[in-house]
Parts: sequence; structure tokens; C-alpha cells
Amino acid sequence: MDAQRPAPQRLLEAGERLFAEKGFKGASVREIARLAGLAPNMINHHFGGKQALYDAVLEKFSKNAFAVPTRILADPAASATEFRVKFELFMAETLQAFIDHRQVFQILTKHEGKFIPLTEFRAGVIAFLSQAKTDGLLRPAVDVAMVLGLVLDRLGNQVLYAAQLAEDAKENVVTNPDYRARWLKANADILVAGIAA
Amino acid sequence: MDAQRPAPQRLLEAGERLFAEKGFKGASVREIARLAGLAPNMINHHFGGKQALYDAVLEKFSKNAFAVPTRILADPAASATEFRVKFELFMAETLQAFIDHRQVFQILTKHEGKFIPLTEFRAGVIAFLSQAKTDGLLRPAVDVAMVLGLVLDRLGNQVLYAAQLAEDAKENVVTNPDYRARWLKANADILVAGIAA
Repeated sequence: MDAQRPAPQRLLEAGERLFAEKGFKGASVREIARLAGLAPNMINHHFGGKQALYDAVLEKFSKNAFAVPTRILADPAASATEFRVKFELFMAETLQAFIDHRQVFQILTKHEGKFIPLTEFRAGVIAFLSQAKTDGLLRPAVDVAMVLGLVLDRLGNQVLYAAQLAEDAKENVVTNPDYRARWLKANADILVAGIAA
Repeated sequence: MDAQRPAPQRLLEAGERLFAEKGFKGASVREIARLAGLAPNMINHHFGGKQALYDAVLEKFSKNAFAVPTRILADPAASATEFRVKFELFMAETLQAFIDHRQVFQILTKHEGKFIPLTEFRAGVIAFLSQAKTDGLLRPAVDVAMVLGLVLDRLGNQVLYAAQLAEDAKENVVTNPDYRARWLKANADILVAGIAA
């Protein structure tokens, strides 16, 4: 690794790669430090320990991997049509982010039993939906946190389980773009109809 | 185990217990046969192998564990109100089934990377929703398979991940009945509004 860059950045990148390959337990402090070209005690020095480095890697990953869907909902929807269009694009780009990073996602969720924190992403979605509700675009009864949960559970599971288990290759959202488009449209249709005023 | 009962039944019960405890790979043919009080070659004789016994255990489990939600949707809904009431009860009882059997469910899904087959349950839900669509209770655009997927992903993940990771014990559907009731109501509200005509 390029020794010119700051040590914390090098440790983050080394951690990212090794945690993704081996999980939290599998990646040792010694290995991470070696890949970063630093002494093992530098992880303690810069982050306070392996757990804190891991948390920092997850935060960075969440922020980067889900930047596109977060941007799509950055500005409020001005009309019902705009809400629908943005929500559909947001679902498509969130699914894309899960697909692009499915290795890390599978390790985290299945092997480590953890969620990706997605802190900024979640806050952005909640803000967008809350504003739409305030603006009368959503039914007053809608619980916006549940909308986010439905979207994440549905998209995440598709990448985590359904696609890899699909008996029929035609019904695989990861490898079949036509099916993915139809799948997204059918799910967005139910969710948008379920929350729109 | 009671040696009076038929050998296939004893093998199914022994398999059920050991697969749930140790997963497919962890449970050996020898151990299962011993627990059933039979010679190891009896698994081959009665089922054709460990994989076939495993599949039979899963089918039996699916059928028994999800019998209540399957019965709730056995007869078609006669009106929009009846549809809503049945759908809400169905969601509540499906969540209950996941909670009651969460150990097996976690082993299957997380460790083995498999779905519970739920063959009869799935067929029953699809038939109920398709009939409701034919009867004009659902919007024509609704893809009933996606409705089933949304319900299973949402309820399953809550038991598989969300509840065990809940930082706030108040937000745990497994241990807090009040939260579970509110959570179910909010999710059913979105889904019913999303599919009703």
C-alpha cells in the first residue's frame, strides 16, 4: 500500500479488504496492519482497537456504497408524480448498491449477524418520506420507518438469498436485467400505492 | 425413541432435532440413525440418503409450523373488509410461526443459506390473493407473488435479524407484544393499502 497516504486511511482500506474477505473474527490485527504497511499497535493508536476500526470501515462502506440512492432522495418531491418517479429510482439504485457490494453484505449479514449501519442513507430516506408526508403526498397513517424497513428487507433479501437460490435463472435479479426491471416495478407499485395519499 | 412407531417417522423426528441443532452438515447419518434407534443404512433404505431425509424434514416442518396462517387464508374473502381482517390475522400468525420456530429458521437461513420450502403455505397465500384479485378486491396491476415476497421478507427478517439486534428492548417484536402489535398494524396498513382495489 502507498506509504505516502495517512496511516488511518491505509488502515481503513486494509480493514475493508480483509474484513470483507474473512469477516470480523477471521481478520487479525496483525494481518490488517501488515497489509497497511504499519506496526500492529497502530490500530490501537489510531482507532482504539479492532472493533473500532471495524465500525469505522462499516460507516465508510455504508456512506460510499449507498451514495447514489441517498442523492436521489436529497431534495423533496414537489408532486405525487415526482414522488413516484424518485421512489422508483431510489429502489432501483438501492438494489444496484446491494448487488455491487453483495460480497461484503453477505459476510456482514449472514456470517457476522450484523446490519450495515447505513446511517446517512437511513436518515436521508426518513427525511424524504417525512417531508412528503408533511406535504400531503403520503397518507397520514403511514409510518415512514416501516416503509424504509420494507424496502431494505425486500431488496436486501433478494440479493442475499433469492437470487443465489433462484432455480430458474430467468428469475434472478442479479444476473437478469429484464427480470430485475419487472421485479422492481411490481414491488415499487405495491409500496407506492401503499403509502401515497 | 419409541421403537413401536414406523422407522420413517422415527428418522424424520431424529433428523428434525439434529438438523435443527447442528445444521445439515453438522448432523451425521450415524447420529441421526442412533437417535432413531436404527442402523445407519436405514436412512438410505427409507429415504434414499441424508439429503432426501433433510428435504423431507423441511417439508414436514413447513407444513406443521405454518398450519395456522395457512388455515386463515383457506377460504376466499367475501368483501374488502373481510380481506383486510384476514390479511392482518394472516400476517400476525405468520410472524408468530417465525417466532415460535426461530431456532430452526435461523439455522436454515443463516447457516445453511436455504429457504424453508413452505410449499403449502405459499400455494395457499397465492390462491387466496389470486381469488381476491379475480373478485375485484385487489388492483389489477398487483403481482400476487410479490405480495407474498414482501410479507415473508419483512416478517422473516424481523425475527432473523431485527429483533436480536434491537438496541432498544422496546423495539423487539419477539419480546415486546405491544411493539409487535404496533409493528404489525403499521406494516399491514401499508401492504393492504398497496394492493386493495
